[in-house]
Amino acid sequence: MGVNAPINRKLRMGLVGGGQGSFIGRVHSIAACLDNRAELVAGALSSNPQRAKQSAPDYDIADNRAYGSYEEMFDAESKLPDDTRIDFVSITTPNHTHFEIAKAAVEAGFNVICDKPMTFDLAQAEELQKAVEESDVVFAVSHNYTGYPLVRQAREMILSGELGEIQAVRAQYIQGWLRTKLEAEEQKQAAWRTDPSKSGAAGAFGDIATHAYNLGRYMTGLLPEQVSCHLKTFVEGRQLDDYGTAVIRYQNGGLGTVTASQISHGRENDVVIEIDGTKGALQWRQENPNEMIVRQNGEPHKIYTRDPNAPYTNASGAAASRLPAGHPEAFFEAFANVYTAAFDAMVQRAEGGSPARRDTVYPNVYDGVEGMYFIQQCVASSDQDAAWLPLQHDAARK
Amino acid sequence: MGVNAPINRKLRMGLVGGGQGSFIGRVHSIAACLDNRAELVAGALSSNPQRAKQSAPDYDIADNRAYGSYEEMFDAESKLPDDTRIDFVSITTPNHTHFEIAKAAVEAGFNVICDKPMTFDLAQAEELQKAVEESDVVFAVSHNYTGYPLVRQAREMILSGELGEIQAVRAQYIQGWLRTKLEAEEQKQAAWRTDPSKSGAAGAFGDIATHAYNLGRYMTGLLPEQVSCHLKTFVEGRQLDDYGTAVIRYQNGGLGTVTASQISHGRENDVVIEIDGTKGALQWRQENPNEMIVRQNGEPHKIYTRDPNAPYTNASGAAASRLPAGHPEAFFEAFANVYTAAFDAMVQRAEGGSPARRDTVYPNVYDGVEGMYFIQQCVASSDQDAAWLPLQHDAARK
Amino acid sequence: MGVNAPINRKLRMGLVGGGQGSFIGRVHSIAACLDNRAELVAGALSSNPQRAKQSAPDYDIADNRAYGSYEEMFDAESKLPDDTRIDFVSITTPNHTHFEIAKAAVEAGFNVICDKPMTFDLAQAEELQKAVEESDVVFAVSHNYTGYPLVRQAREMILSGELGEIQAVRAQYIQGWLRTKLEAEEQKQAAWRTDPSKSGAAGAFGDIATHAYNLGRYMTGLLPEQVSCHLKTFVEGRQLDDYGTAVIRYQNGGLGTVTASQISHGRENDVVIEIDGTKGALQWRQENPNEMIVRQNGEPHKIYTRDPNAPYTNASGAAASRLPAGHPEAFFEAFANVYTAAFDAMVQRAEGGSPARRDTVYPNVYDGVEGMYFIQQCVASSDQDAAWLPLQHDAARK
Amino acid sequence: MGVNAPINRKLRMGLVGGGQGSFIGRVHSIAACLDNRAELVAGALSSNPQRAKQSAPDYDIADNRAYGSYEEMFDAESKLPDDTRIDFVSITTPNHTHFEIAKAAVEAGFNVICDKPMTFDLAQAEELQKAVEESDVVFAVSHNYTGYPLVRQAREMILSGELGEIQAVRAQYIQGWLRTKLEAEEQKQAAWRTDPSKSGAAGAFGDIATHAYNLGRYMTGLLPEQVSCHLKTFVEGRQLDDYGTAVIRYQNGGLGTVTASQISHGRENDVVIEIDGTKGALQWRQENPNEMIVRQNGEPHKIYTRDPNAPYTNASGAAASRLPAGHPEAFFEAFANVYTAAFDAMVQRAEGGSPARRDTVYPNVYDGVEGMYFIQQCVASSDQDAAWLPLQHDAARK
Repeated sequence: MGVNAPINRKLRMGLVGGGQGSFIGRVHSIAACLDNRAELVAGALSSNPQRAKQSAPDYDIADNRAYGSYEEMFDAESKLPDDTRIDFVSITTPNHTHFEIAKAAVEAGFNVICDKPMTFDLAQAEELQKAVEESDVVFAVSHNYTGYPLVRQAREMILSGELGEIQAVRAQYIQGWLRTKLEAEEQKQAAWRTDPSKSGAAGAFGDIATHAYNLGRYMTGLLPEQVSCHLKTFVEGRQLDDYGTAVIRYQNGGLGTVTASQISHGRENDVVIEIDGTKGALQWRQENPNEMIVRQNGEPHKIYTRDPNAPYTNASGAAASRLPAGHPEAFFEAFANVYTAAFDAMVQRAEGGSPARRDTVYPNVYDGVEGMYFIQQCVASSDQDAAWLPLQHDAARK
Repeated sequence: MGVNAPINRKLRMGLVGGGQGSFIGRVHSIAACLDNRAELVAGALSSNPQRAKQSAPDYDIADNRAYGSYEEMFDAESKLPDDTRIDFVSITTPNHTHFEIAKAAVEAGFNVICDKPMTFDLAQAEELQKAVEESDVVFAVSHNYTGYPLVRQAREMILSGELGEIQAVRAQYIQGWLRTKLEAEEQKQAAWRTDPSKSGAAGAFGDIATHAYNLGRYMTGLLPEQVSCHLKTFVEGRQLDDYGTAVIRYQNGGLGTVTASQISHGRENDVVIEIDGTKGALQWRQENPNEMIVRQNGEPHKIYTRDPNAPYTNASGAAASRLPAGHPEAFFEAFANVYTAAFDAMVQRAEGGSPARRDTVYPNVYDGVEGMYFIQQCVASSDQDAAWLPLQHDAARK
Repeated sequence: MGVNAPINRKLRMGLVGGGQGSFIGRVHSIAACLDNRAELVAGALSSNPQRAKQSAPDYDIADNRAYGSYEEMFDAESKLPDDTRIDFVSITTPNHTHFEIAKAAVEAGFNVICDKPMTFDLAQAEELQKAVEESDVVFAVSHNYTGYPLVRQAREMILSGELGEIQAVRAQYIQGWLRTKLEAEEQKQAAWRTDPSKSGAAGAFGDIATHAYNLGRYMTGLLPEQVSCHLKTFVEGRQLDDYGTAVIRYQNGGLGTVTASQISHGRENDVVIEIDGTKGALQWRQENPNEMIVRQNGEPHKIYTRDPNAPYTNASGAAASRLPAGHPEAFFEAFANVYTAAFDAMVQRAEGGSPARRDTVYPNVYDGVEGMYFIQQCVASSDQDAAWLPLQHDAARK
Repeated sequence: MGVNAPINRKLRMGLVGGGQGSFIGRVHSIAACLDNRAELVAGALSSNPQRAKQSAPDYDIADNRAYGSYEEMFDAESKLPDDTRIDFVSITTPNHTHFEIAKAAVEAGFNVICDKPMTFDLAQAEELQKAVEESDVVFAVSHNYTGYPLVRQAREMILSGELGEIQAVRAQYIQGWLRTKLEAEEQKQAAWRTDPSKSGAAGAFGDIATHAYNLGRYMTGLLPEQVSCHLKTFVEGRQLDDYGTAVIRYQNGGLGTVTASQISHGRENDVVIEIDGTKGALQWRQENPNEMIVRQNGEPHKIYTRDPNAPYTNASGAAASRLPAGHPEAFFEAFANVYTAAFDAMVQRAEGGSPARRDTVYPNVYDGVEGMYFIQQCVASSDQDAAWLPLQHDAARK
């Protein structure tokens, strides 16, 4: 279990974003440091230099490493000695700023954990992919749901053929918090998410459908072929979609559906995925993440719990667990698992190795590109009356 | 509660189909007689005259009213005196035979409860609609899921505006029993359902997606405008779809999805419907039918139980209940509720009244036509690469 | 499946109790007739002769068999010819009247289905046992929860050793409807249940703890040795217990607990039983009766569904099912299963056989005696500060 | 939300226990540091001096503060300057060593977080209480389930009278991992827990029933009066109880039950508590900790989720949350909440204040004493055939 993993090398973290009023910056810092494998030592916590510095004490960042801007941080940190300089940068700013920060970090040689969606649009994503490929940095995207132990367990089960050929994937992410026009009330989280100049071409589909789509890709490895998407904006006056459904044809003939809502009263972060294979089927729900139902005709429905010691738990599931069964793990630990997998690669790099770039346990830059492509094609399909558009991108090639 | 309803007039039932090896015939007879408001007195239990007569003792039908064919039954019963003749006919034969039997029954003046889908194709359904309109019989279609007390409760809640404007409807019906090619093993239930000459143009979509679609229509009253459908046949060599998903545009701008599967390992009759309105949302699942979740932002998730005495239970929900809360009711009682609602109309007719034909509590001939139209348009859309096709039918007009 | 069982011989039912305002009388009549193996032909529906006769049309009982009293019914029916006379009597009156009616029915040679608790006190129960033993009638007590298919399945699993030695049984029956002093508002159901002159020595423990206790006895076959019980009356001014917990020592060294409440806000009929054996454990809940969880260390939690066709379903579970998996069955069907099992014995008797008296599939007179003994000893133990009292009764001997 | 709480003063942690092979030591260190309000700087990680020092790198503890024994640590740290010396000691060793370590820490003036049960027996607990009272240290016991946000929410609801007078408390803690005689297989966790010389007078009752009992005390504030307990050792050859049930009389007339099992196949850490009040009732389950069911007659069952922004969430529930609703929190965060509450008191002390000693948000030394008294009286009652013994201890006085 991760909880007992030795600390080979403690990594130094530099945080971009996360200043006063931020939510996701704090999540990243907790997740990164959860296992004591990393330490937050530097930050450019706001685009406002003054606020950036004022926020530093909240994170226990020393004054001399509380920078006024990410440029300043990258510059100053680059000049520090090897055993002091930050190892990686976590980018937790709004979508539209990811690209320039990430590119600068990569070019400065820092490993990166970038919040999702990775960039503002596909062109940026592709350019960032190139930058990463030209560097030797480790680059992860925080599709945090991939970090849940039972998601990892399911992935290994599927990739090893336990469920047979996968034919259907039904993924949903249902929320209710944007049911009213919160953006008109200057609610910060709502404001940027519904603003095309900050969020990008899509609303709910960029913010949450990408998670559901990525989860299906991650768990099954199925390669997509085409998408037909239908987006809706139900709240009057809103600029971006707050509801939608996409149908996906996979290259193996399988069929996928992704449904996202931000207008379903009372729903919180209801991520549910159901996967049907020729030999078995499974179902997992984020809000009760320590259970997964596995089904086969003629057998009882089986509830797999997150149990690192159970005979039915595979290596991936066990490695992602910190606690014995029945002591629930949740969001932070899953988030930390994305970090942990990236840390393994960072340590490998630091020790002179060449960590794999594709098919990594952590979502990588290619997943980031695919996510941006998914958003672009969904929006385009919806604009063309749900026409079938290609969903094959080079980033997804093996 | 129905359980204490007085028996104003006990109705006499004639059963078509239901002979040895049948399942649904027995369900109809149990459901019809559950409340002691009807009595099974005659039957044409098989298309094979000999087997028809041999099956009669299983139903306690007297020899002299065990007929060799439905024609014989309608003919003979028509000649019996008013106080002996059957009041209604229940049609529980395979799909492709419904039409001729139903039409004959209607023309002979018998009330009809017809299993779903109502006919083999839309043309038959429209012709049957005309026949019903030209008669004064009560005609019900056994979309039995509409009979669940909490479905009725939800319907009244929605139609009275409690959830506001309805914007999204997600309905699914997931099964697993046709995961393998059972029809090749001469399993009777599988054989006719996967045979286009008996089942009609669709497989899973005719058999179960119609239920899911009907449920959404029944609960919300939303009028459909267009459909885009994608059907799949995952089991090799099968002649009809065993999986599919349809997206529905409703006339009010709402969006619906209907997903049906018969190839999802271990799934039984997993009918789930989620309905999102501007003021509230609800969720109901057939396999646990005594609960419904109602949600509103800012309030706890509320589990409405089937509780005829609860202040939150409306008239429709209470009227459909036979037992106090906590004593679960299930499939038979829901099925019986379709009968009970039709019985009310039959009694009204028998007493010289003119029971309503549209917007009845029981699913009627127009619902049957709509169901056939839904199947036809889904198949056609799927054949045209999921093109948007109209889904407005005169049968659905108010 | 029961649904397709042939009707060997249709039995004639005489109902005692069930007049206007009754609930349980209607339940008995629906349950008895559900499978068309019985017909309600006679009734003494109220202790008030006039109301008794007025209630007859509600049950479609002919005037000439609507009797003014049970004595009248037994007398008149006894004189009818074999092929007309009622075969069995269902007793659905308040507790304090069961004994005299049941005894008279037995002595008149009628089979009996008696509501529970079987009598007013233990002395009556023992006398009734003797009367039954001196007759050849079939005598069943409506511990209806024993009729659920998964309860029957569990029983067979346990008795065949699948769970190993049984060491712990935790049973509860939690309700909330007597949270306020309903009896002071002249609510009929509350009034007699809280009145020691009608209900007997116990309130909640007589009304519902007996069910929970019986369920454990039925499912495990464990013989009890001693009981320590603690009863409470939480609602001020109430005459009988409305809450309590009993600890039971079984003869094999196992430990049981029975908890009953009628004062737990919002709880309906929350019967839950958990059984721990050396080889496995199971858990079943009445309010979701089509599922049972079976657990073994090292294996996933297994949800057994009520599935008559599943390989894991044993003969007892399959025989008690009427519908395929996923079409839920519930209270009425379970109740009907008690009747069906008793019908099998009645037919055997009618055909000259000697049906078994002990260890029957239906709860029998010995179970009824045990229930009364349980009530008596619980009340006595509670009166003696929860002293350990014997719980071995001859009725439970093998 | 805690996640955004400013770091007023970062506290320095010294860990006792937690060396190679330990589980709970790591849990304490993660929990303590989760919010970046504390830093692990020193440790005496094993009773074996060599192993103690070898384990230090796993925790990133500097060599010069990796001590060979707790005595050495307390001694050396006491001599360090104020701004370097550890602020608190976390004791994560086996039960029988808690007392001497805790007493020494208290006498040296260090704040303490002690794992539960607090000591080996009641005498030690009472002596420790005195030591704490004579000092001004903050002393917490890690009854970690009290840290769950919905437990805190429930506590505030109950103490403010929302549920009325509390009359019944049903608490259980069901596990299965000691179903077989693991201690014979030299499994470390099993070995000391089943060894009376290390674990104390009770097995399951000391290890887990204390948690269930404490949870009821914490949530309701009800003062106990008497206990009757029945312990069993089902696994042959085991020296301590592995199953048991206790009935508790509260001083207000309420009734409680505590059931604990370590022999229930497949059960993990199934802590469930149900609380019945005159105005409402609630139910919470540790394995799905982000939901709590609140019930009132006549109203739908209400699922309160852990939602810091919901109008129904009270101050205690909101303060214990780090994430918005739908992003589950779990075991570590609850554990951290015990630390956080103790940190608040430590900071208050450090700033010269006198933090409260009783009725603290974190479980304190009095709760520790009560836990030991509960164990002692349960064992004694069980030894006397479940006799009623007093359960009033001065530690519980207001």
